[in-house]
Amino acid sequence: MTTKAKRWVLASRPEGKPKLDNFRLEDVTLSDIGEHDILIRTEFHSVDPGMRGRLSGDSYTAALPLGETVDSAMIGIVEASNNEKFKVGDRVTGGFGWVSHAVSNGRGVQVLDPAIYHGKLRPSAAIGVLGIPGLTSYFGLLDLGEPKKDDTVLISSAAGPVGATAGQIAKMKGCRVVGIAGSKDKCDYVKSLGFDATINYRDTKDMAAAIKAACPDGVDIYFDNVGGSMLDAAILNMKDHGRIVVSGQVSEYNRGPDELVGIRNVTRFITHKLRMEGLVVFDYFKGFKAAQAEMAGWIHAGELQYTEDISDGIEGSAAAFVGLFEGENHGRRLIKVS
Amino acid sequence: MTTKAKRWVLASRPEGKPKLDNFRLEDVTLSDIGEHDILIRTEFHSVDPGMRGRLSGDSYTAALPLGETVDSAMIGIVEASNNEKFKVGDRVTGGFGWVSHAVSNGRGVQVLDPAIYHGKLRPSAAIGVLGIPGLTSYFGLLDLGEPKKDDTVLISSAAGPVGATAGQIAKMKGCRVVGIAGSKDKCDYVKSLGFDATINYRDTKDMAAAIKAACPDGVDIYFDNVGGSMLDAAILNMKDHGRIVVSGQVSEYNRGPDELVGIRNVTRFITHKLRMEGLVVFDYFKGFKAAQAEMAGWIHAGELQYTEDISDGIEGSAAAFVGLFEGENHGRRLIKVS
Repeated sequence: MTTKAKRWVLASRPEGKPKLDNFRLEDVTLSDIGEHDILIRTEFHSVDPGMRGRLSGDSYTAALPLGETVDSAMIGIVEASNNEKFKVGDRVTGGFGWVSHAVSNGRGVQVLDPAIYHGKLRPSAAIGVLGIPGLTSYFGLLDLGEPKKDDTVLISSAAGPVGATAGQIAKMKGCRVVGIAGSKDKCDYVKSLGFDATINYRDTKDMAAAIKAACPDGVDIYFDNVGGSMLDAAILNMKDHGRIVVSGQVSEYNRGPDELVGIRNVTRFITHKLRMEGLVVFDYFKGFKAAQAEMAGWIHAGELQYTEDISDGIEGSAAAFVGLFEGENHGRRLIKVS
Repeated sequence: MTTKAKRWVLASRPEGKPKLDNFRLEDVTLSDIGEHDILIRTEFHSVDPGMRGRLSGDSYTAALPLGETVDSAMIGIVEASNNEKFKVGDRVTGGFGWVSHAVSNGRGVQVLDPAIYHGKLRPSAAIGVLGIPGLTSYFGLLDLGEPKKDDTVLISSAAGPVGATAGQIAKMKGCRVVGIAGSKDKCDYVKSLGFDATINYRDTKDMAAAIKAACPDGVDIYFDNVGGSMLDAAILNMKDHGRIVVSGQVSEYNRGPDELVGIRNVTRFITHKLRMEGLVVFDYFKGFKAAQAEMAGWIHAGELQYTEDISDGIEGSAAAFVGLFEGENHGRRLIKVS
């Protein structure tokens, strides 16, 4: 029995911001699954700004080959199984990309436990607040940021899934939290999560001055999802021994090697004893289960909120990705495939 | 009994590179010392590139007031004492600046122990390899750099007092050490200290490629005294989990806030899990004595070498400082005052 499926592939390499025609939706026919295989029907897949790097590659990063399926996390239902670890109807998560169906031998596929994913914790959260974005917030803030009670924590892309989660965790740790976002609506959302103050960067001519006004005593932790001039403005406001968590650099992802903005104020690393550290969440793989259990507890207790921005239909995956770089998403952006 | 003395004061604030006329040599007459005071006759004072920041100040760094004595470390002999902790003839060190004589109540003044400072360890080393420059090397490399056996360590300003010491300590820890310096003579000196390879940046058009050639497996630790485009080139060659020790930023000190070069390649902090941290050596104050004892042992055993670049006469202090920014010094630059 064959299965008609769809998948998005990389059609051409973006230069600058990604465009729709960098991607192509293909019809594929999947044949019968083999021994030990499972067939998964996608419920949701994610679109992630951090995936931008793989679309171009450079001399240091392996590029996604042209014609290959675009990467992402997905959640789906097992429709057929020749693998004793999975039964038909199981809800699973894996890294199969922008696809309507996936065939797998089960490696890297996890079954979602209904004892965890119920009530306030929707299954889609497995690729959001309990997935890579949420784990990035958790380990970035707690391990690299080292928050202490009464620290001032500044967060860029605060309405995005990583920033919103990091900010709420910082509040639980007794910090004063200031979020930067790109519209009044987003700032209102961020405040509704319990952030103490917000900065709408689209209304702000002088970011360094705006940060100083919002953080008059300076910044202990800057959780950076943006990079470039916003990072530089934050550096000017860091307190002695301030920590910068480099979680994302969305303002830089669409720039070529000669167009990168970067930062100017490196001398302040000496005068203010600053530390800046990049986060690769897979370094913390062994701690994922414990972190997910702790965050699941917060969500069920109503202490950690998350928002999903869901588009219907796999036909819209490329447009949803392109729109990320216009700042149009509001929460974790997912595609509802079936 | 009065004492005729000389001191250098800040006459005007430098814009860009410091010039001779930013400084003024003054004659002063010191009156009799008071109760508990000591009079010190300077043997040596230092000139330090890191002092450049204090000459300008900005909205974040307190500037040295115009007309005030220029800061530095000094070594001298106690010529008169009303303080029971010091006797005439003691050799002492303190932070009295570019002066021929200093009067002090003894606070912050240390007597040099002849049991330590003898033989290969000259008293002048107290404001060099056992002073702030050497302690910067020691704590920057060992605490922030975290060297492990077989790590590749890249060091800029490798012929300077901080870089040369850091490189030799890295060799003792079993690392492969590559030094960057600005002339063939300096590179030869660096090799004579045991560095494995050198890069003469004045002969190099593409620093990133030159670092790649000298460090084909990448860089684990970059001990940075320079900043700007050299730091950016190093970042492109850092291995995963590489550590950048921001010890100095001599290429940036003479730039105004809008002229800073900084770095572009911040995205590599994510892709390569990099850490960059500024060093303020006074954070390690409680560890100074132990570090000095360990380094003194290395020097007496012939395992750690140091070089001093000594000019005669306090009349030349300003010229010696100005020359630092032309890269003309070779080792720790000291002024022999008497």
